[in-house]
Amino acid sequence: MKNTWEIQLSGSGGQGMVLAGIILAEGAVLAGKNAVQTQTYGPEARGGASKAEVIISDGEIDYPKVVKPDVLLTMSQAAFDKYAFLVETGDTLVLVDSTNVTDLSGTGGKLISLPLTKMAAEEVGKAMVANMVALGALVTLTGVIPPEALEEAALARIPKGSEGLNVKALRLGSEAARQVVK
Amino acid sequence: MKNTWEIQLSGSGGQGMVLAGIILAEGAVLAGKNAVQTQTYGPEARGGASKAEVIISDGEIDYPKVVKPDVLLTMSQAAFDKYAFLVETGDTLVLVDSTNVTDLSGTGGKLISLPLTKMAAEEVGKAMVANMVALGALVTLTGVIPPEALEEAALARIPKGSEGLNVKALRLGSEAARQVVK
Repeated sequence: MKNTWEIQLSGSGGQGMVLAGIILAEGAVLAGKNAVQTQTYGPEARGGASKAEVIISDGEIDYPKVVKPDVLLTMSQAAFDKYAFLVETGDTLVLVDSTNVTDLSGTGGKLISLPLTKMAAEEVGKAMVANMVALGALVTLTGVIPPEALEEAALARIPKGSEGLNVKALRLGSEAARQVVK
Repeated sequence: MKNTWEIQLSGSGGQGMVLAGIILAEGAVLAGKNAVQTQTYGPEARGGASKAEVIISDGEIDYPKVVKPDVLLTMSQAAFDKYAFLVETGDTLVLVDSTNVTDLSGTGGKLISLPLTKMAAEEVGKAMVANMVALGALVTLTGVIPPEALEEAALARIPKGSEGLNVKALRLGSEAARQVVK
């Protein structure tokens, strides 16, 4: 079992990467782990890009930033073009939203591509919960935290009244991931 | 004008320090600055403590963590006891929620104490927006970002339907800060 996970979540401004990062980190805490969660807002943020980083560990976390991601989520073509080409080896899982990312060239990572936004729109009825579909898939693909901890953390952070949609989205992502790896 | 601000927001788990940190960082971006926002969840998080860090700069931000805070917000006695005693000089502004922190001993910082939670409960009608009262006060006391950028960032993050309460809380904090420093 891996002891420390470096996870990078990237997309465009409206795709909820910051919230996803917080939920993942708080899920890790509920699972008894340590976590550090960081957002960096630079000139890139004004261009509409959004990146959240989460480090999850059973032990102490020395450095709060991702150096070499174990998992990279890219939910937009711009995010893929910017971050996925930095990935050199199949040690890194690159999870791609194929609804938005159509050109998958230039990465050395191990690609898993799912239509996250399309799934959210068609099966949950709300494209905005694509970030939750992504989290469900990510957690199931990696085993970094138990799905139950992820759900509990999500319920504590999402707006009242949208619990059903969000849990549905998380489970949809998990299920899709199970289909991929089975 | 100061170029880089290191800001530490601390309180207990339910006091919204993570959301406050995100809003402050996103307000900085709207004001044309760079920002890094970090949450560290360790064993302390399971004890109910919550800490968010924000670094705001006109230039590049080299290191994402607060080394010596320019501003420390403490919204609980536990947070005050844990972080304020680390402050050695009056260069650090220690903003205290006097509703929850009654023993102010042991810090070398420059103290400003306001009944943030009481103000939120009595003047906005909702103790939960004490974090917004705190942000309004912090921004007005320091000038780190314009109040307009803070409001715009808050409106983008808070749940729909609670805009009025949150803006009222931000302005209440600003006004209280103006009374203190005038």
